[in-house]
Amino acid sequence: MVRARQRDIAQAAGVSEATVSRVLNDHPGVSEATRQSVMVALDVLGFERPTYLRRKSVGLVGLILPELTNPIFPAFAQLISTALARRGFIPILCTQTAGGVHEDDYVQQLLDHGVAGMINISGLHADSDSKPGRYFRLRELGMPLVLVNGAIDGLDVPTIANDDVAAIEMAIAHLTELGHVRIGLAAGPDRFIPVIRKLWGFRGAMARHTSLSRAEIDDLIVHELFTVDGGAAAAARLLDRGVTAIAAASDLMALGAVRAVRARGLRVPQDVSVIGYDDSPLIAFSDPPLTTIRQNVTAMSETAVNSLVEIIGGSDSRAKEFTFRPELVVRGSTAPCVVQARERHTPRARGLRAAKVSDERP
Amino acid sequence: MVRARQRDIAQAAGVSEATVSRVLNDHPGVSEATRQSVMVALDVLGFERPTYLRRKSVGLVGLILPELTNPIFPAFAQLISTALARRGFIPILCTQTAGGVHEDDYVQQLLDHGVAGMINISGLHADSDSKPGRYFRLRELGMPLVLVNGAIDGLDVPTIANDDVAAIEMAIAHLTELGHVRIGLAAGPDRFIPVIRKLWGFRGAMARHTSLSRAEIDDLIVHELFTVDGGAAAAARLLDRGVTAIAAASDLMALGAVRAVRARGLRVPQDVSVIGYDDSPLIAFSDPPLTTIRQNVTAMSETAVNSLVEIIGGSDSRAKEFTFRPELVVRGSTAPCVVQARERHTPRARGLRAAKVSDERP
Repeated sequence: MVRARQRDIAQAAGVSEATVSRVLNDHPGVSEATRQSVMVALDVLGFERPTYLRRKSVGLVGLILPELTNPIFPAFAQLISTALARRGFIPILCTQTAGGVHEDDYVQQLLDHGVAGMINISGLHADSDSKPGRYFRLRELGMPLVLVNGAIDGLDVPTIANDDVAAIEMAIAHLTELGHVRIGLAAGPDRFIPVIRKLWGFRGAMARHTSLSRAEIDDLIVHELFTVDGGAAAAARLLDRGVTAIAAASDLMALGAVRAVRARGLRVPQDVSVIGYDDSPLIAFSDPPLTTIRQNVTAMSETAVNSLVEIIGGSDSRAKEFTFRPELVVRGSTAPCVVQARERHTPRARGLRAAKVSDERP
Repeated sequence: MVRARQRDIAQAAGVSEATVSRVLNDHPGVSEATRQSVMVALDVLGFERPTYLRRKSVGLVGLILPELTNPIFPAFAQLISTALARRGFIPILCTQTAGGVHEDDYVQQLLDHGVAGMINISGLHADSDSKPGRYFRLRELGMPLVLVNGAIDGLDVPTIANDDVAAIEMAIAHLTELGHVRIGLAAGPDRFIPVIRKLWGFRGAMARHTSLSRAEIDDLIVHELFTVDGGAAAAARLLDRGVTAIAAASDLMALGAVRAVRARGLRVPQDVSVIGYDDSPLIAFSDPPLTTIRQNVTAMSETAVNSLVEIIGGSDSRAKEFTFRPELVVRGSTAPCVVQARERHTPRARGLRAAKVSDERP
């Protein structure tokens, strides 16, 4: 390796060129942390690692994801893979696709190939309609398992979850502080546990922060798929009901909501506020930059890997839910409510106003 | 399954409820295409598949990716996984991370687990400095292999590549039509084959479309990492050199370039045009919506899988490069050049103008 490159590596790793040379030539007197920094610098800059710096695998771990289209799942995959690699495990990513490989088939393959454990993100355990037996069978086989964003009652495994109730409460508190009352919830399908939790949080927060009745609040909830198109469809239905703000169940749904608002000739956030959920990678670059509720993907990924590695190492697996507090990230898609602007534009609001006007007539 | 759900599935699959019932109960008289549509609808809507609709695996295929942070890689992973599943193969995703599992270690694991073949995207085969021996050894073992976006001279494997030369030519033709002459290239590290091809294309296109000398053109090329920060750093250096437009080697670099332009108080596209490369998922939602060069990820993924499946099925593996033509996607980050605006803002341009003024003095 030429000296120019050693200089680049030293700079990237924040160590001296002499240290880089010692690491590359496997000389003694280098701490494990320094060795790791140099290895990361080699990888980031794209140089090949010396053979001795290759990791010895202590086993395979299956990581099951529902899909890779929503950018929150690649974010989980990247962080969990990195954390597993650091502990010496080789991650096997199993991503499902519509019409593709089924979760149970992936699990069977992972069993056939003797994985040391499995981490399952937003799988069938997040679907309240799915049969929980598959997970109890895995535990009977002694397979170390960690579930992320979902839960199976009575199963002795750690569950890592974002606090969905707190998440929607933060969104509603933010929007009501901006003066919004008619806030629509663009939710995903109502079978999913995170959705059920958000519904619960939405009803509670709306009851506390507004004077709307339970029936009025329920009228502001619509269920569509967790996609851009799903968000657009949900927003269209909510705009018909006279909302001035939309809380979406994912950033993708929020992008769809922004599109639907603009399709009516309205502006985000001047006419309608939109808040997302996830804080997906690159979402800060959206137009407008999306206000959203951040899942603590980094802490969740670290905890999932630590919990799994502990069980693989011999700790008893226990039913324990690690709940992570989300954060409100205020960017440019939410603004103070200007109700008049809404009333001019939505049929329902026009209808309500017309009704009100006629009420005023004696 | 209740009737309401059969109706949803029928609607999503575009078939009758009676057909859905026949598929779910494995009755005869249903075409494979219809069965597939119903299965996709089940998956999209999140219902469980009947056991008989599970796929029988014909083998595992390793899919090696450099990372998942750049959204183009999850896009490839999703499409290739789907195409493999449709052919009965279970994909194993191997994603690298800085300081994580090395490509060679993934390959060894895949060999140990008896995969039927491997698809490698932008791996060490894309790095002109890496040793090609690892790929020749794989072929000596008889392992079916397809390489995407990179190439190894003399290796008897199909290579799937975007036409990088055509891509940069499209970008330069678009920008010069808008009146830009001082166009900067924010390129990735110069070891990578796609970068080397883009450099070649850039020099040729700039020589054809402008009257700049070879030295002046070379002065408009900077190399940084393929990241948002890399793009911002490259753009800062290019703005110092008085560019009015920036062609970035990835959409992530383009987002960084937009950020760097704005950090100088300039606007995109009114003051500086920026064009990306990839057409990553969701990039159309960026601010401004990014003009970019689209990689035909769908066709490339299909071809990679078809080529691999043919080799697994017994066809001879041959050195053949499938090159895919990219497309210019014009959105909102490019606009006609207004040189005066540039000259006011960039030190180099100010220097050039000052020099010109002093030349005019006799």
